[in-house]
Amino acid sequence: MPQDYLNEVAPALEKYSQNILQQDVWKRPELNLRDRSLITLAAMIARDQHTELKKYMELALNNGVKPSEISEMITQLAFYAGRENALNAAKVAWEIFHERHVNMKEMPAAEPVLAPVDERSEAHRLDAVQHLFGNTGRPLARYTTDVLFRNLWLRPGLTPRDRSLVTVSALIANGKSAEMPLHLQRAMDNGLSQAQAEEMIAQLAFYIGWPNAFSAQSVATAVFNNRGH
Amino acid sequence: MPQDYLNEVAPALEKYSQNILQQDVWKRPELNLRDRSLITLAAMIARDQHTELKKYMELALNNGVKPSEISEMITQLAFYAGRENALNAAKVAWEIFHERHVNMKEMPAAEPVLAPVDERSEAHRLDAVQHLFGNTGRPLARYTTDVLFRNLWLRPGLTPRDRSLVTVSALIANGKSAEMPLHLQRAMDNGLSQAQAEEMIAQLAFYIGWPNAFSAQSVATAVFNNRGH
Amino acid sequence: MPQDYLNEVAPALEKYSQNILQQDVWKRPELNLRDRSLITLAAMIARDQHTELKKYMELALNNGVKPSEISEMITQLAFYAGRENALNAAKVAWEIFHERHVNMKEMPAAEPVLAPVDERSEAHRLDAVQHLFGNTGRPLARYTTDVLFRNLWLRPGLTPRDRSLVTVSALIANGKSAEMPLHLQRAMDNGLSQAQAEEMIAQLAFYIGWPNAFSAQSVATAVFNNRGH
Repeated sequence: MPQDYLNEVAPALEKYSQNILQQDVWKRPELNLRDRSLITLAAMIARDQHTELKKYMELALNNGVKPSEISEMITQLAFYAGRENALNAAKVAWEIFHERHVNMKEMPAAEPVLAPVDERSEAHRLDAVQHLFGNTGRPLARYTTDVLFRNLWLRPGLTPRDRSLVTVSALIANGKSAEMPLHLQRAMDNGLSQAQAEEMIAQLAFYIGWPNAFSAQSVATAVFNNRGH
Repeated sequence: MPQDYLNEVAPALEKYSQNILQQDVWKRPELNLRDRSLITLAAMIARDQHTELKKYMELALNNGVKPSEISEMITQLAFYAGRENALNAAKVAWEIFHERHVNMKEMPAAEPVLAPVDERSEAHRLDAVQHLFGNTGRPLARYTTDVLFRNLWLRPGLTPRDRSLVTVSALIANGKSAEMPLHLQRAMDNGLSQAQAEEMIAQLAFYIGWPNAFSAQSVATAVFNNRGH
Repeated sequence: MPQDYLNEVAPALEKYSQNILQQDVWKRPELNLRDRSLITLAAMIARDQHTELKKYMELALNNGVKPSEISEMITQLAFYAGRENALNAAKVAWEIFHERHVNMKEMPAAEPVLAPVDERSEAHRLDAVQHLFGNTGRPLARYTTDVLFRNLWLRPGLTPRDRSLVTVSALIANGKSAEMPLHLQRAMDNGLSQAQAEEMIAQLAFYIGWPNAFSAQSVATAVFNNRGH
């Protein structure tokens, strides 16, 4: 397959990629290159698509995402996109890290010192789960509390804002509208602005397709309106 | 892997494929072979599934879809199913086109003369977006207008009916119910009959699974009822 | 790629896999190993993910799922997850069955003696379809009746409970909430307890990601509440 296969088969798509995606979208100042790399990589892992995964993982490293942060993203996405998605991403990361002679001892520890639980926000979350599941769904609720919110989310390998960005990107990439409001609110509580959230959705549209982006913006609009009141 | 692996492992599935899918569904007169090929190929690209992609792309060519139309489908689906889906399909197209000695200069130009904008339908669409997003989501709304509805959709490489068929198939294949009504209405405005739409969903069921087909038929029923009034 | 690539790249994910998924989730008594294998394998086929497919298909055989039952699952999932998903699973099954010298004549016949139709439950289902589609969608409704409910579902290769388990797992794995209530009710009518259904969702969360599991538990809660009245 020659390098310019796309230009041969679909010159229009190549032109859109160059003129709009590369020369316009990626250069808009509303979101920096590191954030753009982080969300695009998260979306690719969440969709389990590998054609450009290596290229975009390398781009993320070049744009300031640390190898240890990619490791932590992969762990986060095992829980928010699926186990095999994470395994496939870990294989690509292994290759790149070895090519770049990354010291694998820099990877986040399996059992680091965790951040303290924010008991108020956790009580709020438990109320929402209770409202959703009532007295049913105890096994899922238990693992959600013990493994996710009292462990995974408290790991120091990613800042809370980055962890939320990665999680929201995965939800958007897979069209999981029902789970978006909680995580978009959390991302905004952790420092994501409305303009950045809108910009994130516009960039992701070019990778995950317009239908998923439109669903996401509809949910985001409701979240923004809710926060405005 | 022997050619008849399916017959060895799951003779029932092989029998359903032969007796129902090949001998019955594909031969129903309500939708012609070219349309059936177009929608099945679009669904495979939209789901990023490659096992039978080459076979069905060749079938589409044999049933009268032109290489330039496959090129244009790929560009359309980059925006309606995702970028990597389009890249993967472009690779398969590159192989087939070279095997068949297709003149690559026949591919649709990157910047052709566009059809005129239908300002009335475009105003209607902008109203719907405004209703959905309010004053938020400007970046996505801007690219939707500039790149999609004032450019991509006006390209001459596919007839409006074919472009709509491909788009609706992608939405059905990925279970994007919320985005279906607009595009199914557009397809019907562009000449798709209710009987053809129903037939499309029934055929796709065998490729994308019953759950996606049932979601699609529920949405289609609402669209049909709405048009009837 | 070394065997311990995951431990090198994401030691935390490896630790969660060992300590929670393997040592805790899989050992909970609420669901036996055969059921756990069946639902995990169904979810992988439904998501068309292949990284651990061979490993989990072998695990299913080791946990008492018969080769003929895997064959029948594949046929069922062609209709409930998609055709290519089934073809890809059939290839892996072919490999394993030949490695294990399975007698391929044990595979379920293409046209076996079918179980009798439960006309009361079938009338109830037809009412629901009529309510959903009205007078539209005849082609899909016809194949649903003739191919699925008067043929596929009556095949003897899987018990009704197992066939329902496989189907519900596929719906959960692909986030098809709208189609879940009918099939979860059917699974419970066929002997799945509420505790087993809850346990199934908690186990699947680790493979398909939390967002799909949360959607599933929300639907399941509504089904449980409905049955309680």
